[in-house]
Amino acid sequence: MADGIKALTFDVFGTVVDWRSSIIAQGQALGERKNINGVDWADFADAWRAAYQPAMEEVRRKRRPWANLDQLHRENLDRVLAQMGITGLTLAETEDLNRAWHRLDPWPDAVAGLTRLKKRYIIAPLSNGNLALLVNMAKRAGLPWDAILGAEVARHYKPEPEAYLTAVRLLGLEPEQVMMTAAHNSDLVAAQALGLKTAFVVRPSEHGPGQTTDLKPEGAFDVVARDFLDLADQLDA
Amino acid sequence: MADGIKALTFDVFGTVVDWRSSIIAQGQALGERKNINGVDWADFADAWRAAYQPAMEEVRRKRRPWANLDQLHRENLDRVLAQMGITGLTLAETEDLNRAWHRLDPWPDAVAGLTRLKKRYIIAPLSNGNLALLVNMAKRAGLPWDAILGAEVARHYKPEPEAYLTAVRLLGLEPEQVMMTAAHNSDLVAAQALGLKTAFVVRPSEHGPGQTTDLKPEGAFDVVARDFLDLADQLDA
Repeated sequence: MADGIKALTFDVFGTVVDWRSSIIAQGQALGERKNINGVDWADFADAWRAAYQPAMEEVRRKRRPWANLDQLHRENLDRVLAQMGITGLTLAETEDLNRAWHRLDPWPDAVAGLTRLKKRYIIAPLSNGNLALLVNMAKRAGLPWDAILGAEVARHYKPEPEAYLTAVRLLGLEPEQVMMTAAHNSDLVAAQALGLKTAFVVRPSEHGPGQTTDLKPEGAFDVVARDFLDLADQLDA
Repeated sequence: MADGIKALTFDVFGTVVDWRSSIIAQGQALGERKNINGVDWADFADAWRAAYQPAMEEVRRKRRPWANLDQLHRENLDRVLAQMGITGLTLAETEDLNRAWHRLDPWPDAVAGLTRLKKRYIIAPLSNGNLALLVNMAKRAGLPWDAILGAEVARHYKPEPEAYLTAVRLLGLEPEQVMMTAAHNSDLVAAQALGLKTAFVVRPSEHGPGQTTDLKPEGAFDVVARDFLDLADQLDA
């Protein structure tokens, strides 16, 4: 399977890091510090994440100029705080809460798997997260990326073709030399249509205990893996 | 001195890696394999490098569309081979020789110094080299970059302001939070004019035994260091 593959690019939110548990934990910690009562921080995390695709869609459809994910997250955060009646945060506390996305924890297998894969392949995020978010996350979590690619460098959000093709071009490779790795079928379908190789990694608790989507591959992907260690096994890394 | 600095960006050719010795060694090895006689490979390295700034200047002045450094190096290589009467290389051998710039060796202190600096700061190249060149170089040499920045991401060659300011923006920082590190006065003067902090690292043999330029700082830079270990000492890393 590994024949001809030079680089692996990775979706990050949900695939490399467990955004939901991390946002819940940081919300709870803030709530305790600030004596904010009666908030379900899982609802908070889900509401904030639910605003993610619609915000990017405004950019994709060019209804607004380019805005990176820190900016979109911040606008969405202000709305979610208001909707849930969370008040009393200072500007600095709100900005710090927005950077919770820079402090997401990796799935337990992610660092070990990436470390093995890095020995044989170029590894880079191909995420809708902005570069600073991904750099700060990587330094905190120990993600050993070779480069930081993704939406901000391309100025196009996945699944727009430019997001994937800019990464391929910057790596100096052909699409079939790059394997897109994600826990989301839609991401892999878009990459595959452009000629990239694809690896589906199942993350059955990304959305919590009741997850109903992306529990299995819904396409003819090149690799289907249980986690990043299984992915490394299958790619002889 | 380290107050407020979050990231260090690095010039690469001459500052992190010893391009001249590396190109000479790779030329000599090719000459031996191919029985190419009578070529002074130091002259070859110097002639190839002498074509570097004029080629970028065509792009800076918009006399041609954007072309990355692999492309410029390749055009220059064809000319230098012809000028020096080096013939008999196959297309594959010529392309491999062009990628000699992906295989440059670091100065002896570079990996150890960067490894120390990375613990305290974000570290990234801010080079005129293209991203693939810098990724391949880093993997071979063990340069532990947090991200790969520089001309290709900005689509502007240093010392154009956009090259530096794009890196600062992608890092999510203000200019004064970023320290440009280089062995070349001109690079630091350009960065300083935009508000970046500056560190001059002396590389007295970059151009070989007869070097006459960049032997000392010619500006009021924030740090002047003997090598990357001295830089790490001065920045408390």
